[in-house]
Amino acid sequence: MKLSKDKKILIAGLGLMGGSYAEALTACGFEVGAVARRQETIDYALKQGIIKHGTSVIDPEYIGQFDIVIFAMYPHAFVEWIENNQQYIKSGAVISDVTGVKCSIIYKIQAMLRPDLEYIGAHPMAGRECSGVENARMEIFKGANYIVTPTDRNTPEAIELCKDLGRVMGFRMIAELTPEKHDEMIGFLSQLAHCIAVSLMVCKDSHHLVDYTGDSFRDLTRIAKINDEMWSELFLLNRDVLVEQMDLFSEKFALMRDSIANGDRETIRQMMRLSTERRKYFDVKQEDDES
Amino acid sequence: MKLSKDKKILIAGLGLMGGSYAEALTACGFEVGAVARRQETIDYALKQGIIKHGTSVIDPEYIGQFDIVIFAMYPHAFVEWIENNQQYIKSGAVISDVTGVKCSIIYKIQAMLRPDLEYIGAHPMAGRECSGVENARMEIFKGANYIVTPTDRNTPEAIELCKDLGRVMGFRMIAELTPEKHDEMIGFLSQLAHCIAVSLMVCKDSHHLVDYTGDSFRDLTRIAKINDEMWSELFLLNRDVLVEQMDLFSEKFALMRDSIANGDRETIRQMMRLSTERRKYFDVKQEDDES
Repeated sequence: MKLSKDKKILIAGLGLMGGSYAEALTACGFEVGAVARRQETIDYALKQGIIKHGTSVIDPEYIGQFDIVIFAMYPHAFVEWIENNQQYIKSGAVISDVTGVKCSIIYKIQAMLRPDLEYIGAHPMAGRECSGVENARMEIFKGANYIVTPTDRNTPEAIELCKDLGRVMGFRMIAELTPEKHDEMIGFLSQLAHCIAVSLMVCKDSHHLVDYTGDSFRDLTRIAKINDEMWSELFLLNRDVLVEQMDLFSEKFALMRDSIANGDRETIRQMMRLSTERRKYFDVKQEDDES
Repeated sequence: MKLSKDKKILIAGLGLMGGSYAEALTACGFEVGAVARRQETIDYALKQGIIKHGTSVIDPEYIGQFDIVIFAMYPHAFVEWIENNQQYIKSGAVISDVTGVKCSIIYKIQAMLRPDLEYIGAHPMAGRECSGVENARMEIFKGANYIVTPTDRNTPEAIELCKDLGRVMGFRMIAELTPEKHDEMIGFLSQLAHCIAVSLMVCKDSHHLVDYTGDSFRDLTRIAKINDEMWSELFLLNRDVLVEQMDLFSEKFALMRDSIANGDRETIRQMMRLSTERRKYFDVKQEDDES
């Protein structure tokens, strides 16, 4: 299947991400429908013009009309939905998703999916510090990365279709990673960073220090405002990989701590020189992006 | 002594911070002189018009003309300078500094200082990710905090004079803390944050991940580019307090790690809810400041 304007797209789950997908794909000229848990969500999206139609009930006939189905719900809800309702999906349809972890979802879904359907995983690395369809905005994709995570069960056509979805929605970079590489990357760059921010924010009541707070503490804790329901689920779905990244960090943090306690200045300076050297690559990249 | 335009001010050490002080105080109409290690530094500052005169040699007569002397050099160099040259300072002069840690410096200096001189500690919480007089800019003080750290050896007049210096240079907030409270605050808000950033940056070669890096990792590692000579000295001068802050963080980080490893979702969520709650205060404050 190729991505063309005659393909009907169903967004299953209409929160911040599902709503933003709906807005972007409708803006591209696709016929976009939606299923959501609450009718108010559907009503809101219809009023905003980001979907053409939608329903809050499981309607086999409605579901059966779509060529592409994109799941934008909590991971466990995605798995349950497939278990309960996959029989209604049109034969030959391509399924994708927005789930932030891949291994623990992809292999489970692919193992139980009907043979005449194809599921290709994707992770749009975009978001906002809020949730709900009312906060959906397709602008969040501008400048963001879109990662497709194929397995050996995927066809080149579905991989290309999935990448095309990312392209038409306006992502900055479309990349391909194995589910394993994806989860390691996200465990290190995103989940570990969130674990650090949360731990820093809770380790001391710092309310009385607000007046003295400069940029460094604010930078490190910006992501400490976090949706606990979603993120705890994602952490646990990537448990082994995340714990591995946390242990890598703890080892170096303990080395820094002991070097300070023992007055081992040379080790402290070596770590600082290495961190300075490595951080430069991230600046260069950012400057490239901005130019 | 009151701060008035007839007071002559000497900046001892003319790097990023000393140069920015010189620029700000010259712009206020003070007669500002400087001592620096290298004559090129003095020549540059004269050419830029941020000092009226200066020297790279120890000249008793030159030093003896100033009413206020502000030290903006490495902490150990500040202590050495006082040991070797305090006899040249004018009787009745007030001495201040810009050192980022206080207890380990203040009590040492005050204990050895001539009885006819008064040293009042200050910490301008401003800076740039670069160094040297060429990068000095008085604009770095705008919106920044200026902390005065008196002890029971200080007079109300010198404390007020020191605060006035911060006011005329354009700092956003002038605050007063004991050296002990200052060091705990800076150990938690700034030094701990830098230890975390450096440890995160060195714990894994993340060069190949640059393309996937979103804001969270960049935010957490922005301060991982660090002047290793200066910061290792400051860490070690605040050793006990900093190690205490690091242990507070490690304890919570270990709790997060074990909760993830054990699938204890409720503990993870509790930590996230607390961090979300606490982080809000820092947003509110920032919004207040911006309005």
